[in-house]
Amino acid sequence: MAIIVQKYGGTSVGNTERIRNVARRVARYREQGDQVVVVVSAMSGVTDTLIKLAKEITALPDEREMDMLLATGEQQTIALTAIALQSLGIQAASLTGAQAGIVTDGVHTKAKIQNIAPHEVHRLLDAGNVVIVAGFQGQTEEGQITTLGRGGSDLTAIALAAALKADLCQIYTDVDGVYTADPRIVPSAKKISEIAYDEMLEMAGAGSKVMQLRSVEFAKKFNVVFEVRSSLNDNPGTLVKEETRSMEGVVVRGVSLDKNQAKVTLFGVPDRPGMAARIFKALANSAVNVDMIIQNVHAGSQPTSDLSFTVDKPDLLKARKVIDALAQEVGIREVVADENIGKLSIVGVGMKSHSGVAAKMFEVLAEEGVNIDMISTSEIKISVVIELSKGEIATRAIHRAFLEC
Amino acid sequence: MAIIVQKYGGTSVGNTERIRNVARRVARYREQGDQVVVVVSAMSGVTDTLIKLAKEITALPDEREMDMLLATGEQQTIALTAIALQSLGIQAASLTGAQAGIVTDGVHTKAKIQNIAPHEVHRLLDAGNVVIVAGFQGQTEEGQITTLGRGGSDLTAIALAAALKADLCQIYTDVDGVYTADPRIVPSAKKISEIAYDEMLEMAGAGSKVMQLRSVEFAKKFNVVFEVRSSLNDNPGTLVKEETRSMEGVVVRGVSLDKNQAKVTLFGVPDRPGMAARIFKALANSAVNVDMIIQNVHAGSQPTSDLSFTVDKPDLLKARKVIDALAQEVGIREVVADENIGKLSIVGVGMKSHSGVAAKMFEVLAEEGVNIDMISTSEIKISVVIELSKGEIATRAIHRAFLEC
Repeated sequence: MAIIVQKYGGTSVGNTERIRNVARRVARYREQGDQVVVVVSAMSGVTDTLIKLAKEITALPDEREMDMLLATGEQQTIALTAIALQSLGIQAASLTGAQAGIVTDGVHTKAKIQNIAPHEVHRLLDAGNVVIVAGFQGQTEEGQITTLGRGGSDLTAIALAAALKADLCQIYTDVDGVYTADPRIVPSAKKISEIAYDEMLEMAGAGSKVMQLRSVEFAKKFNVVFEVRSSLNDNPGTLVKEETRSMEGVVVRGVSLDKNQAKVTLFGVPDRPGMAARIFKALANSAVNVDMIIQNVHAGSQPTSDLSFTVDKPDLLKARKVIDALAQEVGIREVVADENIGKLSIVGVGMKSHSGVAAKMFEVLAEEGVNIDMISTSEIKISVVIELSKGEIATRAIHRAFLEC
Repeated sequence: MAIIVQKYGGTSVGNTERIRNVARRVARYREQGDQVVVVVSAMSGVTDTLIKLAKEITALPDEREMDMLLATGEQQTIALTAIALQSLGIQAASLTGAQAGIVTDGVHTKAKIQNIAPHEVHRLLDAGNVVIVAGFQGQTEEGQITTLGRGGSDLTAIALAAALKADLCQIYTDVDGVYTADPRIVPSAKKISEIAYDEMLEMAGAGSKVMQLRSVEFAKKFNVVFEVRSSLNDNPGTLVKEETRSMEGVVVRGVSLDKNQAKVTLFGVPDRPGMAARIFKALANSAVNVDMIIQNVHAGSQPTSDLSFTVDKPDLLKARKVIDALAQEVGIREVVADENIGKLSIVGVGMKSHSGVAAKMFEVLAEEGVNIDMISTSEIKISVVIELSKGEIATRAIHRAFLEC
């Protein structure tokens, strides 16, 4: 008898009709004789409504109380899902995160799971129940209710799968799986049947927002194999797992285009030791997340360097403030920001054992007349910054060259 | 430093503006240096919305899951109330029923409080917080979430006041307190400043629906003095407490008219031992709540009796079904139901030491031309069943005779 953990997001449980659909799917698995644990998010819209209520009272509500408030969203869904299963004749019982034994640290609104003691989950499973667990939430050792922050329900499912030593972990979402490229940009994009954790991480980092990084990191750490699939059909999804030898046969697993980056260039930065550290420490202190960094040094009697880096677009204003303040202080000649960029990335564990991948990528872009602004590489990823208006053409050309042969 | 427990119902916390008003009131007490524990209900409408969602899925949702679902209503209010207090600069922390140490039996949707272990309430109070506790809910010894049923938040407040040995327990509602009569019927009705538990119980039983019986019973059992008062103004309310010597000086504390009763009369019931037991057992088995009972025996060779009783109007149909079935079986001559009745009651602990109260009541009614259909008396209450159309005139006359002199 296998243990299956299934996670359904807010859209999949967005109203009672959809909750019934989820129940029917769960019932099919249960009727095959497996033990099923279902993790659900709040019904779509509920969390936003609750946040709106709190903000009606004050702009900066206390985080402990926000956790108390927001945890009710998932608690409602677990009860309704259990009721829906029972109405199909399936024995079911719901558990809050706290009841399911999910113990977190005390960092409210973005708590980290420290430990899972799923006695109650096991007890209810052994008594013949489908067990419905509230995603996104847990409690501290002292019994304070906490929430896990964005993507928290995925994390709950993967952590529970690890703790229960589940045979299968399915993340149901509104897409069919992970694609070789965004099908809205590349109509010929194909669903990927298997992807390595590291590839999934680089894809997520490159702007493919199927899942939050930390859920994939957690799955990698505890070696939880999981499948990303659609709650709207029965198509097999994408299996995310440890890298295997056979995966290396494919050089490029996927292409992604991140339109959400902006570039900041600092011209004439005094070329002194510790200058870069000072700049990026100032940005980090302001919680600006920097992605790519490039530096060129101009030789001369008073050597200076030009420094470019990219940040998420919403952080650009904050980044400019930090840099403008610093520019005066240390004598940077000019600061220029550019929002019209796109970051194009190719990802694949096969790159480790294949040479000439970068050269081929640059060649394809050159053929399309796309100018490369910045380059950054890792063992399994190559990213380039290009003009935003050329982003989609470039993505299609790269997909054609690497994934349609 | 006194401990004050305040309870606010669903209307008082019906939106964020009202929650702010509650917070302002709580803040005033806190600023006087007292320790304040606030018990809140779900925002008005929230519980109904949740019930509606469950009923969209199935007509008879599981009671364990309904508790899981409904408990979220109060949990939302405690968080919002804490946030509102904090926005006024008052240190506050919320607790679910479970976190507040409210332990109940396992009878879902109508659990009974078994025990309160308010360590966490004390800890938070001692750390300088106003503590906001979710009404209406608790958990079993095994950690199952339960709800207390109708009027449950009042019960939470009174039980917490007992457990904390609070100096004051205030039940905030949308009326100013308990009145000598319903002011909509008797414009000259006056607010009662002090009332004995037993009087309050009889008033509630007589149709004055300020509070549920069981909260008053609980308060009486643990001798919790509480005040019923309005959340819309600062008027003193009605203090409900142990009977004192001075209370006996007032013969009649209040008058109430219950328009929600119906009368069933059984003519020609065979006058055999056990006949009444059989009739009322059958009604009890069908969960029909019988209030007043009158029986007259007609002597003769085959003695029969006429039996009348009153039930809540919504139960009349069920009662008729039970009685009609029985009528055939045991040979009852005729069954007549009458919905056009009113039950008029006067209540007062002073009746114990005053004679002639009933006689005076009957005399006043006779002067008004009101015919008395049934009579029932207890030590501190006299109830009569009269024609519904004369109910309000009779109530005013009785109020004039006993309470306006």
